[in-house]
Amino acid sequence: MNIILLSGGSGKRLWPLSNDIRSKQFIKIFKNEEGVYESMLQRVYHQIKKADPEATVTIATSRAQVSAIHNQLGNSASISVEPCRRDTFPAIALATAYLADIMHAGLDEPVVVCPVDPYVEDEYFKALKKLSVQAGKSEANLVLMGIEPAYPSEKYGYIIPEDSSQTTRVSAFKEKPSAAMAEKYIKQGALWNGGVFAYKLRYVLDKAYDLTGYKSYQDLFERYGELDKISFDYAVAEKEDKIQVMRFHGKWKDLGTWNTLTEAMEEDIIGNGILNDQCSGVHIINEMDVPVLAMGLHDIVISASPEGILVSDKEQSSYIKPFVDSIEQQVMFAEKSWGNFRVLDVGNGAMIIKVSLKKGTSMNYHSHEHRDEVWIVTSGSGKAVIDGTRKDVHVGDVITMGAGCPHTIIAETELTLVEVQIGKEISVQDKRKFKIDMDAF
Amino acid sequence: MNIILLSGGSGKRLWPLSNDIRSKQFIKIFKNEEGVYESMLQRVYHQIKKADPEATVTIATSRAQVSAIHNQLGNSASISVEPCRRDTFPAIALATAYLADIMHAGLDEPVVVCPVDPYVEDEYFKALKKLSVQAGKSEANLVLMGIEPAYPSEKYGYIIPEDSSQTTRVSAFKEKPSAAMAEKYIKQGALWNGGVFAYKLRYVLDKAYDLTGYKSYQDLFERYGELDKISFDYAVAEKEDKIQVMRFHGKWKDLGTWNTLTEAMEEDIIGNGILNDQCSGVHIINEMDVPVLAMGLHDIVISASPEGILVSDKEQSSYIKPFVDSIEQQVMFAEKSWGNFRVLDVGNGAMIIKVSLKKGTSMNYHSHEHRDEVWIVTSGSGKAVIDGTRKDVHVGDVITMGAGCPHTIIAETELTLVEVQIGKEISVQDKRKFKIDMDAF
Repeated sequence: MNIILLSGGSGKRLWPLSNDIRSKQFIKIFKNEEGVYESMLQRVYHQIKKADPEATVTIATSRAQVSAIHNQLGNSASISVEPCRRDTFPAIALATAYLADIMHAGLDEPVVVCPVDPYVEDEYFKALKKLSVQAGKSEANLVLMGIEPAYPSEKYGYIIPEDSSQTTRVSAFKEKPSAAMAEKYIKQGALWNGGVFAYKLRYVLDKAYDLTGYKSYQDLFERYGELDKISFDYAVAEKEDKIQVMRFHGKWKDLGTWNTLTEAMEEDIIGNGILNDQCSGVHIINEMDVPVLAMGLHDIVISASPEGILVSDKEQSSYIKPFVDSIEQQVMFAEKSWGNFRVLDVGNGAMIIKVSLKKGTSMNYHSHEHRDEVWIVTSGSGKAVIDGTRKDVHVGDVITMGAGCPHTIIAETELTLVEVQIGKEISVQDKRKFKIDMDAF
Repeated sequence: MNIILLSGGSGKRLWPLSNDIRSKQFIKIFKNEEGVYESMLQRVYHQIKKADPEATVTIATSRAQVSAIHNQLGNSASISVEPCRRDTFPAIALATAYLADIMHAGLDEPVVVCPVDPYVEDEYFKALKKLSVQAGKSEANLVLMGIEPAYPSEKYGYIIPEDSSQTTRVSAFKEKPSAAMAEKYIKQGALWNGGVFAYKLRYVLDKAYDLTGYKSYQDLFERYGELDKISFDYAVAEKEDKIQVMRFHGKWKDLGTWNTLTEAMEEDIIGNGILNDQCSGVHIINEMDVPVLAMGLHDIVISASPEGILVSDKEQSSYIKPFVDSIEQQVMFAEKSWGNFRVLDVGNGAMIIKVSLKKGTSMNYHSHEHRDEVWIVTSGSGKAVIDGTRKDVHVGDVITMGAGCPHTIIAETELTLVEVQIGKEISVQDKRKFKIDMDAF
């Protein structure tokens, strides 16, 4: 099975655990069978591999998420990087071209597209496999998954099937309705449109040619910024006559708010937290080292991260977005391909950052124009390359880098360091990357 | 007026703003007339000076609080330092001896003793002045303040006066009663015992001689650890026949819990916080740089500091102590005479601390046996003295100090630095202080 996972979102709704560069799919809150917390991305990836060990997984995403994906999945999934945000049609067209030109998938091979963040059981991925098989053998150009509705939701679009058989033709699409309208649709046998569908690779390449003049992956990539912002549903699905829907009857949840997310949590507390016995319906998700103490609370979610602290009535939590939009703050933590960083203190011409590198990784070789930096190694060992000169580094070593001086560090073991940035204009944009042959050092 | 302020308390009840070394009286939550937040200590000190500009204020406290008092009051109050914790009688005896021997107060001068943390209006301090005058002229050895009860509290002891006149003899003391019993006392005209009283200096020195064999302040100070733990009420007041009580009718609050403390706050939010319009009765006290967002909450207090995060129903907050006792954690911030420090990160053989010095101050000249340290100056300028050698330091300078190397810094302007401690055994106990003539550098 070829599967394209659409990984988008700015993640404001799960603030403070999500931020401008960590979307909700990267938050580690699901305990796996080994008792280790994993993210939605990791959970979905492992579920796909369990359902189909041969599956090729391609993640369609923005540049901002590439580091976090590498951090969480290593190099086990391919990534189709969107140079900028367009809508779902350009993203799916680009990822499909990536499968054809870069991964060398055959033009008749079926491709399944689904969002990266459904909270589902393993049977869902077996259904994706059936969807893929159906797309491969069917006369239909597009085979959608239709999810049997659990309640008359106003949050989803609906698919009206021609009849109630397992796989049938689509008779109509309906936009997100009112609850009353949704109820009416459901009585007519409507299914939720979860944005999951399959097609033969050739089909979307042809559509891409029709709509964008597609020549090759490289061509599409280079012209990506010029493409119209248009959804796949609007550009393709709603115009297609040869279109089928396959029913899916099983658990399917979109964990987009703190309210729905905490429902899926197995424990009341993740991280350092205490609930007194007068609490009920309280969840604590604490990514800080210090404890959260909750006393006498009911149906409340508490979440703390280096970005901030949320304390919200669970129902109210779905109205979070405008408040988070009003908070102007730089990104305080991020997962990178080489590990992660966390801002410990900021302001007054200085920034203090804790940097953790995984064994065997290294940052880009880079310099800054407007700030000096100091590193103090606090654990592990490795090699620093400073202005072209190699230096072995161990715990306690101090490395100073003036503005303009190119530098990197190669972690030979797990390695942590404190980075102190000093300058009047400290900005993530102030970074110049250099090519370097790491093997030479 | 000579006034002794008793400053005690471990401060667990106002966690996370109080900790093992910052008691509740040091928390800055009261906005003064200039709009600046001040602590209970600062508020009470300024109220005393307003009521009596000539007042000499002596704070009886433990060694642990000396730095914080200097930080908040400079050198404007005298400090009688208790070498270890005994009960109120030894503390009051020592402070009285301090007044006699160090401050050279006369033996017939009246002394007023009161706790450092009552939340009261200015009239209270006018009443203290009257108490002082009464103790100076009265035949009684001890004049207590009796506070007219606002409700039948179980939290206070009661004083039964002989009659209802403004100043009268004490007929009996009553221990903290049940609410029903308290109601009965109040019907008999009982007054709250707020631990406020006045005496002639000689009186307590005589008692100290009787009970401890007191010779001088120095003698009492040196033998302090051998003294019995005994309260002033038990050792003196309850045995005294020549004892009067003066009624006080005015606002008097003991802000010992989050519930009572937030009642005294003028604003809903101190620090970086947002309340949505579905909140009522919510208070945020946030000492962190990052925002607290509260949504849909009622009658809840949220407090965040480098020690941790509390979210509590206001009534429940009075049961906080056992939970805080269960939290094992080092002190994460402290006010020192020279400024303050805050632990930014701890663990894995390293500790990262942000140190802020006030202009013109300096730390002790000291060394550590089991850890190396690195300083990076992030703002301001000054002089470092490292192993006897002076070095001018400016923003961006890095100073490394191996284990055993004595060091200090003298802040010529306001100065901040990052201190990185590296060692297998990092402990506040690992500190050796050296004498140094700062003027020589």
